[in-house]
Amino acid sequence: MKAADAIAWDERGLVPAIAQDAASGQVLTLAWMNRLAFETSLAEGRAVYWSRSRARLWRKGEESGFVQRLLEVRIDCDADAVLLLVEQIGGIACHTGRARCFYRRLAGDSWQETDPVLRDPGTIYASSATGGEP
Amino acid sequence: MKAADAIAWDERGLVPAIAQDAASGQVLTLAWMNRLAFETSLAEGRAVYWSRSRARLWRKGEESGFVQRLLEVRIDCDADAVLLLVEQIGGIACHTGRARCFYRRLAGDSWQETDPVLRDPGTIYASSATGGEP
Repeated sequence: MKAADAIAWDERGLVPAIAQDAASGQVLTLAWMNRLAFETSLAEGRAVYWSRSRARLWRKGEESGFVQRLLEVRIDCDADAVLLLVEQIGGIACHTGRARCFYRRLAGDSWQETDPVLRDPGTIYASSATGGEP
Repeated sequence: MKAADAIAWDERGLVPAIAQDAASGQVLTLAWMNRLAFETSLAEGRAVYWSRSRARLWRKGEESGFVQRLLEVRIDCDADAVLLLVEQIGGIACHTGRARCFYRRLAGDSWQETDPVLRDPGTIYASSATGGEP
């Protein structure tokens, strides 16, 4: 049986994939994979997601260069979530130019930004029309 | 605006919630919350999920005692995923008796168990009929 056969794909044929920085331990992103994205990730050794908004494969870093290199892939007990241990090239995972997408923390009853913008997104993405993912 | 209003609940009214051990940095579980689960989590200071299979609130550890105490709550850039930094009481997050649900690692084309069972699930759950969550 192939590894992908063991995954409990949801009714849309997707599975959530958590990317965690293997060095810092920070959770960087949560994105989605379909079977093709999962298999392409393994074949290419980098995180490749399924962009739900664009309905196409999304090779993380394809535009920004901020590739997530796969170091380890894990699956949970009921096989409906995947965990990627990655090397985050460039140290920026978020399309806002921050290290991680989870840059807001709950404080009282509001979400407060805690993480700095490391690079202006305007200098990351060539075209504002495609400005960032997903 | 309340914190829950900022969350991009999906078409089922759910959001994926990643629980990460604040001490070890290990990603423990991925579960789901609806608005009631999210607000109950905040009110009680512990992870409360929405069990999709049982269609009811699931207070993590309600049967096992392996509560996830909330230390920090984060949200991602597009507000469709939540990250919980938790103290995992008892050191066991998975209903299989392991520290985390992501106890299998991809090796070649198969999933290999890497993490030991710390406690027999039969001694964790009083009734095999409810044997473990979710």
